Amino acid sequence: MNKEAKRVLSFGTHPDDIEIGCGGTEVLLAQNGYMITHVILTSGEAGSDRIAPWELSAIREKEAIEAAKVIGAGGVEFMRYPDGLTGFTREMKVDIIRLIRRLKPHVLFVHERNESSLGHRVAGELVLESMQAASGPWFQEAGGGPWSPDVVLGYEVWHPLGRYELAVDIGATLETKLKALACHRSQTAGVRYDEAIRGLARWRGVMSLSGGDAEVFEVIKASPDVLLGSLVR
Amino acid sequence: MNKEAKRVLSFGTHPDDIEIGCGGTEVLLAQNGYMITHVILTSGEAGSDRIAPWELSAIREKEAIEAAKVIGAGGVEFMRYPDGLTGFTREMKVDIIRLIRRLKPHVLFVHERNESSLGHRVAGELVLESMQAASGPWFQEAGGGPWSPDVVLGYEVWHPLGRYELAVDIGATLETKLKALACHRSQTAGVRYDEAIRGLARWRGVMSLSGGDAEVFEVIKASPDVLLGSLVR
Amino acid sequence: MNKEAKRVLSFGTHPDDIEIGCGGTEVLLAQNGYMITHVILTSGEAGSDRIAPWELSAIREKEAIEAAKVIGAGGVEFMRYPDGLTGFTREMKVDIIRLIRRLKPHVLFVHERNESSLGHRVAGELVLESMQAASGPWFQEAGGGPWSPDVVLGYEVWHPLGRYELAVDIGATLETKLKALACHRSQTAGVRYDEAIRGLARWRGVMSLSGGDAEVFEVIKASPDVLLGSLVR
Amino acid sequence: MNKEAKRVLSFGTHPDDIEIGCGGTEVLLAQNGYMITHVILTSGEAGSDRIAPWELSAIREKEAIEAAKVIGAGGVEFMRYPDGLTGFTREMKVDIIRLIRRLKPHVLFVHERNESSLGHRVAGELVLESMQAASGPWFQEAGGGPWSPDVVLGYEVWHPLGRYELAVDIGATLETKLKALACHRSQTAGVRYDEAIRGLARWRGVMSLSGGDAEVFEVIKASPDVLLGSLVR
Amino acid sequence: MNKEAKRVLSFGTHPDDIEIGCGGTEVLLAQNGYMITHVILTSGEAGSDRIAPWELSAIREKEAIEAAKVIGAGGVEFMRYPDGLTGFTREMKVDIIRLIRRLKPHVLFVHERNESSLGHRVAGELVLESMQAASGPWFQEAGGGPWSPDVVLGYEVWHPLGRYELAVDIGATLETKLKALACHRSQTAGVRYDEAIRGLARWRGVMSLSGGDAEVFEVIKASPDVLLGSLVR
Amino acid sequence: MNKEAKRVLSFGTHPDDIEIGCGGTEVLLAQNGYMITHVILTSGEAGSDRIAPWELSAIREKEAIEAAKVIGAGGVEFMRYPDGLTGFTREMKVDIIRLIRRLKPHVLFVHERNESSLGHRVAGELVLESMQAASGPWFQEAGGGPWSPDVVLGYEVWHPLGRYELAVDIGATLETKLKALACHRSQTAGVRYDEAIRGLARWRGVMSLSGGDAEVFEVIKASPDVLLGSLVR
Repeated sequence: MNKEAKRVLSFGTHPDDIEIGCGGTEVLLAQNGYMITHVILTSGEAGSDRIAPWELSAIREKEAIEAAKVIGAGGVEFMRYPDGLTGFTREMKVDIIRLIRRLKPHVLFVHERNESSLGHRVAGELVLESMQAASGPWFQEAGGGPWSPDVVLGYEVWHPLGRYELAVDIGATLETKLKALACHRSQTAGVRYDEAIRGLARWRGVMSLSGGDAEVFEVIKASPDVLLGSLVR
Repeated sequence: MNKEAKRVLSFGTHPDDIEIGCGGTEVLLAQNGYMITHVILTSGEAGSDRIAPWELSAIREKEAIEAAKVIGAGGVEFMRYPDGLTGFTREMKVDIIRLIRRLKPHVLFVHERNESSLGHRVAGELVLESMQAASGPWFQEAGGGPWSPDVVLGYEVWHPLGRYELAVDIGATLETKLKALACHRSQTAGVRYDEAIRGLARWRGVMSLSGGDAEVFEVIKASPDVLLGSLVR
Repeated sequence: MNKEAKRVLSFGTHPDDIEIGCGGTEVLLAQNGYMITHVILTSGEAGSDRIAPWELSAIREKEAIEAAKVIGAGGVEFMRYPDGLTGFTREMKVDIIRLIRRLKPHVLFVHERNESSLGHRVAGELVLESMQAASGPWFQEAGGGPWSPDVVLGYEVWHPLGRYELAVDIGATLETKLKALACHRSQTAGVRYDEAIRGLARWRGVMSLSGGDAEVFEVIKASPDVLLGSLVR
Repeated sequence: MNKEAKRVLSFGTHPDDIEIGCGGTEVLLAQNGYMITHVILTSGEAGSDRIAPWELSAIREKEAIEAAKVIGAGGVEFMRYPDGLTGFTREMKVDIIRLIRRLKPHVLFVHERNESSLGHRVAGELVLESMQAASGPWFQEAGGGPWSPDVVLGYEVWHPLGRYELAVDIGATLETKLKALACHRSQTAGVRYDEAIRGLARWRGVMSLSGGDAEVFEVIKASPDVLLGSLVR
Repeated sequence: MNKEAKRVLSFGTHPDDIEIGCGGTEVLLAQNGYMITHVILTSGEAGSDRIAPWELSAIREKEAIEAAKVIGAGGVEFMRYPDGLTGFTREMKVDIIRLIRRLKPHVLFVHERNESSLGHRVAGELVLESMQAASGPWFQEAGGGPWSPDVVLGYEVWHPLGRYELAVDIGATLETKLKALACHRSQTAGVRYDEAIRGLARWRGVMSLSGGDAEVFEVIKASPDVLLGSLVR
Repeated sequence: MNKEAKRVLSFGTHPDDIEIGCGGTEVLLAQNGYMITHVILTSGEAGSDRIAPWELSAIREKEAIEAAKVIGAGGVEFMRYPDGLTGFTREMKVDIIRLIRRLKPHVLFVHERNESSLGHRVAGELVLESMQAASGPWFQEAGGGPWSPDVVLGYEVWHPLGRYELAVDIGATLETKLKALACHRSQTAGVRYDEAIRGLARWRGVMSLSGGDAEVFEVIKASPDVLLGSLVR
């Protein structure tokens, strides 16, 4: 991969999922010239038992934009689906196909496939189904032509990956990741996600034998160019 | 647990599921002072090929109330969702969160997670998702504050549990359970659930080595207070 | 089974799924007097990135009728659900229950249960749930009385069966199958399904040790009459 | 299948497993001219906490022979592997390949694949692996040529099948099955398997909608001749 | 449970597994009068690429004894099976049955069932199989009569539990747990298990909403007395 | 990866598994300067019902050497474990750890983890367990220091991968692969693996939308260097 031109597209159910799941790796990529876009499927209006939904969504969108800047992402798109997804519609699928064909990502981040949170699982399935549909001669109404990322990675949030194929050492970017996470003040006030994430990164780092802090990923797709060098096509 | 004040909340998809799955254990709990509430998600209007849906739901609600009295339950709530659930909505999830936060159960019974009937699986996932959401600082619109039961148990109906963590000897309450089940005349007329349940109880009793009749359960949650005595908090 | 009177009902999500998955076996059955009906759940309007949906569905329905003739099927029913199913409704379930009770099939073909395509999985679950509901004294609104096929088989399309219980030698009917598949010109123009299917048939034939070409199936139901001779009832 | 000449081969880990799992169906088959052979992998010497192993195995072999006579089986072979199997060896595999190639069964009964008892799972895997190896041009040292049964069925003992493909009404043979089971006096003295099995049969009968008593099976293999009539070869 | 007399039996594959997986909970139990025994299946002689096996096993046994004292366990038994288990024998199973029947534990800790390390999975299966066999009238050669613990819990080491049923707040005992873990100097020199475990405890604490540090467990068995109070027997 | 110096280590249970599963990809790698070594775990002496084991193993080793030359592999190592593996020993695990630490492969090919053949599953687990053990400060008796490949890929033989993460276009090398496969005359005489493999390659090629012929792989491990470019370390 020629890293100058590479585009990364990261999907999260709630405004803070991307930072939690792959923020450290994103910072590494951003520092190396990757262009990163965040797509937030719901604005997280159910994320409090005190703040009313209509207020909370505005607050959390601001937090997401602020965090994206810390990460070094170039843009944030809000899909504004209802928080607390219990399924997805055909229309949402066409939305995401259109988005993928328009933004043409080389690397795609999404929730891993065994997440314990239903909303996260639904979001993940929506993205992966749309990605599959975007890759072939299908869904004329979504516009654009077939596009498929070279690399698709699943990240962990509430549920730890039982098995992972990729461990990324984020020792150099952990503090930036935590700074981005700290932007989500409406969330970290109630639950200390920041401390949790620091703990998980350490556990992943030691247990993957890298010795430092790590983020781990499910490899959902890898192209032969990427995985076996530039020789096999 | 101080048994005088304990509240039990049992969820069933159809009006007879609770009696089938955990009726014997409920009688034991009722006899020991537990306060039991039944929540029936659908009124079972699809449960006949002869009686029209609008008549059947009224009949079955009466049967459910009668059966609950036999069990010793203090109340029955009917959610009246359409029988033949193929999914659930965000609104239904908010309903159930509200119910859990209002009734604050210590023990919760629900369909086990691998049920073969889609309607039962959907109902079970609705309840467990709502239970999870009810436990944290989320869903302000449902009202109330975070609540989580101490014990959550999954019971079997159409699909036998392949693995169970709890077997309860119901030798002393089997006949009451069957009497409650017999209240569901619209159902037992066509299919002899009563004989089936007597048979299953015997099989479970012998094979769990208690020697008598038993109901078996999937343990979905147990608090440390309950499981390891009152010491660990 | 007395083969003269036997009825086969095959369900496919898209207009070409049945030919791909069980076309060769269907030809064998048709040649031996089985009466075959195809049910196409969606008219495949998402199956192109060039042709508009409203044109494509009409084209594909014609292709499906033409292919069914090549197979020797006696009829095709179009349910016209939206292509790109992400779930199914209670109304669709009642539709399929009604269809099964009206057509009273002895043999039923449907997508296997682990298909990788979400649309196929949803369609398969819709059919199997409806089949289960059609078999008992339930769903008065669907009309008819309980009916259950003697044999239910799951066929493979996009996802190869990891384990199969039945391998059918289609050496004598492979060319007819491919001729039927070739009717789906709107599809084979872009993706060479015909070559793929010829390849898979050969792989299945050799690896199942029949030595020829084969279709393989998941056995979802078999009645004792069929499986153990006419003795056990 | 021409039923006069048909051979059935049933494998059990312990001397009473076959009667528990498929005794009722075997009686039906025996009454219709099938020739049945039982293969007992271990002689069950661990099946007591009072009787010494060397005494118990002799007792249980006698019980097995007596029970086989009640069923109507023509013979019993004892492999005398150690009771409490934790794995199997290559030699055992060659033994079973040789046995299958020598006895050439049309129908084969074995433990279902998800049994909860390790010994049963090991035994089941030994038989299915050997069956697969017996079917191809392999294992010259086992003698004989490739042989594969037309029908392979998995029966349940300690663990109920979560999903089954075949339900056999054993209303007419249940009492004979229980009489055969009663021969295993060394076992039923301590644990009332007979009552358990009567209960399970009733539950299976009602829940499979046959209305009577039933045994249910996992279909592991079915040949096209058997499943789709005599037409497809 | 009357806590004065309660016995805990904890099994670990290697000398440090118990401290890693359930050390914090054990300290809580020890402080409340539980009598704890550790059983170490292998002496961990493969746990270095520098120290020869025969030296290492002696070193690690000493570390295990020292750590057990810190925890407050009353004894350690070494089974001295070869480190790097790839299966277990019938003899090992009889050993463990004998041990369980002799020590009669009320609470049993063992590796959770989906561990990623083969050695841990084998050890876990050995213990659970033996526990099942110890509970019935079987295996006369192991001596003693049937015994079954009231509570059986699976702990996590290398592989995080994807789903857990019990979370124990170990805020008050984390430092003692880490002190016990630090006794395993031959291991923590190379891999910083101590930092990893501190991180995991924090992640588990926050994500289970207790707010502190936690150990989480798979509930493998719970008796009705323990789970539903003293009423149901 | 700097391709000049890269080493590939491929493991197969039988002498022809590597060519079947990853032969086309290996040819691509060999043509681009990768140094490939084949490790054959058993010499396939059970692979006939006519030729005696002691003759067959010698024949098949010659075939394997010939095929490796066609592929362009630089060497073949024969472990000579008994064909028909039903488990593996600690000694075999130490063997494979030693081999991995000695040969220090960058890319490792092995059977995918859900193979239907027990022998293949056992072999795969042996290799992956050894690979894990080779990567850390463990097993001093195996010699060498920790080594872990950058890329580990699982290939398919008897059982098709239900899900894959990598598809390699082998249009340019399919004929060489088939030529290598044809060297295994003792096998292809009885079963036409060559035709089967040509068929599967076509099916994989079309269905992965590459349009040609393909081999597909389970990605078991990928290092960040390989997967995300040279930036993240």
